[in-house]
Amino acid sequence: MVQWIEDPIEDEETERIATHAAALADSVRDLIDAVVRSEVDTDELDSVRGEVEALVKRLRVRQLPGSFGETWGMSGALRAWGNAVIGLRNAIAPPMANEWHDDGTVVGHATLRTAYEGPPGRAHGGVAALLLDQVMGEAAHAAERPGFTAYLNLNYRNPTPLGRVRAEAKADPPAPGQEHKTIVRGTLFAVADDGTETVCVEAEGMFILPRDVRERMAQEAHE
Amino acid sequence: MVQWIEDPIEDEETERIATHAAALADSVRDLIDAVVRSEVDTDELDSVRGEVEALVKRLRVRQLPGSFGETWGMSGALRAWGNAVIGLRNAIAPPMANEWHDDGTVVGHATLRTAYEGPPGRAHGGVAALLLDQVMGEAAHAAERPGFTAYLNLNYRNPTPLGRVRAEAKADPPAPGQEHKTIVRGTLFAVADDGTETVCVEAEGMFILPRDVRERMAQEAHE
Repeated sequence: MVQWIEDPIEDEETERIATHAAALADSVRDLIDAVVRSEVDTDELDSVRGEVEALVKRLRVRQLPGSFGETWGMSGALRAWGNAVIGLRNAIAPPMANEWHDDGTVVGHATLRTAYEGPPGRAHGGVAALLLDQVMGEAAHAAERPGFTAYLNLNYRNPTPLGRVRAEAKADPPAPGQEHKTIVRGTLFAVADDGTETVCVEAEGMFILPRDVRERMAQEAHE
Repeated sequence: MVQWIEDPIEDEETERIATHAAALADSVRDLIDAVVRSEVDTDELDSVRGEVEALVKRLRVRQLPGSFGETWGMSGALRAWGNAVIGLRNAIAPPMANEWHDDGTVVGHATLRTAYEGPPGRAHGGVAALLLDQVMGEAAHAAERPGFTAYLNLNYRNPTPLGRVRAEAKADPPAPGQEHKTIVRGTLFAVADDGTETVCVEAEGMFILPRDVRERMAQEAHE
């Protein structure tokens, strides 16, 4: 189900379709919120369920055989539209929007709605971890030393309220001979209505590129 | 928005409504998957979006003012139906189903569908953290020393594939004078079709009950 393939469709057309799919995913984010909070009666809940099941059938008339995976556009842009944190087509993702800065810092913005709740009124501790793992992984990538999470150490400084958050991460310089192991530091901030930020979670992680992937990349670079 | 209140509705009726809401949330989980994978054309995507928006309006006719929070039934059973990991009404949650064993071990079962993807075909590293934070927090609770996550250290031993996973956690015995700080160890396993398990992530966490909550609990115990 995984495909590190190039996308055969032209960039412009792919982006056009993505806009419509992203708008649909946004409406499903509203639906997720409404299902958590609704107080309508059980007949109405059942009736809505029938309608949702019918919509699922319509969407499944033509679909990918498995998960979305990642594809690259002709321009080389990564399309992780199914990703659990940044995926524009994935209603589980807030989605977090990330910026890669020239100095290697990656900054992510997200709004955590009711469905990200753990303790009452607060974001789930694991949701903070989820956002940080993504932005820290991207920081390793931005430093041109991408990899899979090897460890992730999270220190919870303050509760993360539901609402606006900002995540920030940057890779340490590589240690000599250890270029395949990338240490990244990240922070999650709560953002108040007036823009004031509070540190919620501080994290350190290591991202490692497995040997087989490194060897394949080295080989491809020679071809 | 919602607080630590007792539920005024009778248990049986509340459970009955929950069954219908949980079935609706299940249909929305299918919808999330279908939106990620669908290859229908943009007119159809737009048409489905219109239908979803109409359903959202129907559900919002009567709804909670904010997030679901937690309530307790008359029997004392915790209802975290909006929780991001175990919430039966929350389509973002797999939902993970947890068992509390007599020896203090908490075991959680979940199936990670396409929407939990990070690297192609694999669960997002942060999703593993999300599940472990929940089951480890419950293990602190099961040990009668509940708290909020203070730190969470995760070591990724093997990739977590999409599909069936099992999480397991247990609290260490309390250190003298440190009863409000609970160390919990947890493991996330991938479960193959034949039931074979592979360790994917090992974790250690500390869960702390804040001073104000401890004081309030002590006061309530005296009333």
